[in-house]
Amino acid sequence: MANSQKTSFGSKSKNDGDLFFSPKTDQKMSSFPLPKISEVTDAMREKIQAKIDSKTKPIGSLGVLEEIALQIASVQETLSPKIQNPTLIIFAADHGITEDPVSLYPKEVTWQMVNNFLLGGACANVFANFNKIQVKIVDAGVDHEWEPIPPNLIVQKIGRGTKNFKLLPAMDRESAENSLQTGINLVSSKDFQNSNFFLFGEMGIGNTSSASLIHHCLSGIPLEDLVGKGTGLNLEATNQKLNILKTAKSRTGQILDPIQVLSEYGGFEIGMMAGSMLGVASQKKIFMVDGFIATAAYLLAKSLDPNIKHYSIFSHKSDEAGHQTILKYLGVSPLLQLRMRLGEGSGALAAFPLVSMAVSFLNEMASFGEANVSENKTGG
Amino acid sequence: MANSQKTSFGSKSKNDGDLFFSPKTDQKMSSFPLPKISEVTDAMREKIQAKIDSKTKPIGSLGVLEEIALQIASVQETLSPKIQNPTLIIFAADHGITEDPVSLYPKEVTWQMVNNFLLGGACANVFANFNKIQVKIVDAGVDHEWEPIPPNLIVQKIGRGTKNFKLLPAMDRESAENSLQTGINLVSSKDFQNSNFFLFGEMGIGNTSSASLIHHCLSGIPLEDLVGKGTGLNLEATNQKLNILKTAKSRTGQILDPIQVLSEYGGFEIGMMAGSMLGVASQKKIFMVDGFIATAAYLLAKSLDPNIKHYSIFSHKSDEAGHQTILKYLGVSPLLQLRMRLGEGSGALAAFPLVSMAVSFLNEMASFGEANVSENKTGG
Repeated sequence: MANSQKTSFGSKSKNDGDLFFSPKTDQKMSSFPLPKISEVTDAMREKIQAKIDSKTKPIGSLGVLEEIALQIASVQETLSPKIQNPTLIIFAADHGITEDPVSLYPKEVTWQMVNNFLLGGACANVFANFNKIQVKIVDAGVDHEWEPIPPNLIVQKIGRGTKNFKLLPAMDRESAENSLQTGINLVSSKDFQNSNFFLFGEMGIGNTSSASLIHHCLSGIPLEDLVGKGTGLNLEATNQKLNILKTAKSRTGQILDPIQVLSEYGGFEIGMMAGSMLGVASQKKIFMVDGFIATAAYLLAKSLDPNIKHYSIFSHKSDEAGHQTILKYLGVSPLLQLRMRLGEGSGALAAFPLVSMAVSFLNEMASFGEANVSENKTGG
Repeated sequence: MANSQKTSFGSKSKNDGDLFFSPKTDQKMSSFPLPKISEVTDAMREKIQAKIDSKTKPIGSLGVLEEIALQIASVQETLSPKIQNPTLIIFAADHGITEDPVSLYPKEVTWQMVNNFLLGGACANVFANFNKIQVKIVDAGVDHEWEPIPPNLIVQKIGRGTKNFKLLPAMDRESAENSLQTGINLVSSKDFQNSNFFLFGEMGIGNTSSASLIHHCLSGIPLEDLVGKGTGLNLEATNQKLNILKTAKSRTGQILDPIQVLSEYGGFEIGMMAGSMLGVASQKKIFMVDGFIATAAYLLAKSLDPNIKHYSIFSHKSDEAGHQTILKYLGVSPLLQLRMRLGEGSGALAAFPLVSMAVSFLNEMASFGEANVSENKTGG
């Protein structure tokens, strides 16, 4: 980990110039109440692995599913882990950058799709129903008013969309901190107390642009390797998007402090998702990371506390061009590679059954002893 | 397709020497009642694709899941496909080659694992329960007698294990044809009439050896690129296994006729699975292909009728070394790549939810019109 200081901001500040946040002098930063996230220890590893290896199958033959079972059992500190009330939270917000031609869809699609979620017609609903996962939608900053507020919508607007970050910061620092804090608080609210497993999705026309800049700032990977077609731009339009994002980046120059990155390039839904990831991890619960935008929230959260990695399961490699690059940078291999690029948590939902089956085999399969099956000739 | 003659055997016979089967002179062959398998036409493709593209998501953004939806709808010739009573059939049989050191496990594990399936303790049971998939076990040639016969076991023994193919043919030609025919008949029996979707698994200590030779004979890929660790051999033991299989191969020299390949190198479960694939496809139903051994059955079946490809969904890339090679040879990309190598249909079961979700989105997602969501700016 580049950042080994668990709960301090700006640990990369040795590279920072005057422009950048310094944790030693900025009172605002040090007062930001980041929750404590514990490292997951290896204390039970041997016992869990022994249980996995006792099952009637060749050693290691369930591959990645064994790793998932080990991770979940380790986080839950039990030989019999359970997924309780798995919950998808979709964070939605608008982006000022849509004033520029960065998306194939008009900005209105953000609130229209929130309506679609609330009426049950979106992919996220269909996949969530299939998986018996409850869905909550959080309005983190959609440019639309809901009157009356539908039952499954949680309105936590930080603003009515970000500003156009090509011209000025997407949000002020207070809003960036608010979006994180709201996300942290959200997952400890009573709506979610009975859930020990979270999937996070997002909706926000323009948010691959925001995510690309967050990835770029926090990883140092060139924008060229991160910017992709989003909802389906052709090559020419993708190049145009790249140029817009380069202009946006030139406005600030290099920034490394994650909260400054969030305030410069948004968006509200990404900040709130990052906060929720931190909040879930601080409760020793597990979350699944969806695609390109959710990974930007993850990178933001991980820059604030690297320990969140213990609590995260990467669900899929998106078809968005930069996702593979950033997954490689993070050193993670997601469960699925199906050329999906829909967002809404659809990749996490698609991968969820694999996680369920990983937990099931650990709890339900017979051991060699129980089934009277001969172990291998080496006794292993 | 190398073999473009749909229902004729040995269409590669132009390369055959005297040793090999010639369809023009072998009466037995031409009398073998191969079921007719229809090509799936593109007749409905445009309508199905239009329905997919009408859904509230960017065009193409569900990636491979859209391809699966298109395939299933095309096979079922409907805009609203359904998966009815999905069924896992596990074919089990013993292999004479286990007299040589080709597996880490003793031969007895075949029948012990069949018992485990029947008692519900195996991975296949756990994953099938999770997916609400019925499981039937077929004794295609296990060296064990069942008294009384348990309810979920179908006894269709072709023999009590094959002969050691290092020394002599695994089975005679009649047994090879019987195993195929039994598989064909099986899936049209009343047990399976209400199912329109099949997963095939296998159990047979020694059967990666059999499968490696089938792959080798029918693809021409060198044995070195096909032989792997099976249930978990170390490198030395894998090399020993390779040498044993080379010896076995040198006994026959080149053979290309699929039924001769089956009779030389077995096994009963592979032949019966190949027959069931043909049978399912002839009923215009879909089957999922599991791992390395199931792919050998597929290759066998495809050599008999290339049209089965329309009805097949490849579920996962096994960690067995040769599987990637043979998948590449077949030009197919399976849904999952999770380093699994357990057999029993476990990979197909793991991938099944993705297929279900593909069908669900086509049936259940709202269209742009239904949800009042703006389409993209190009109107596409």
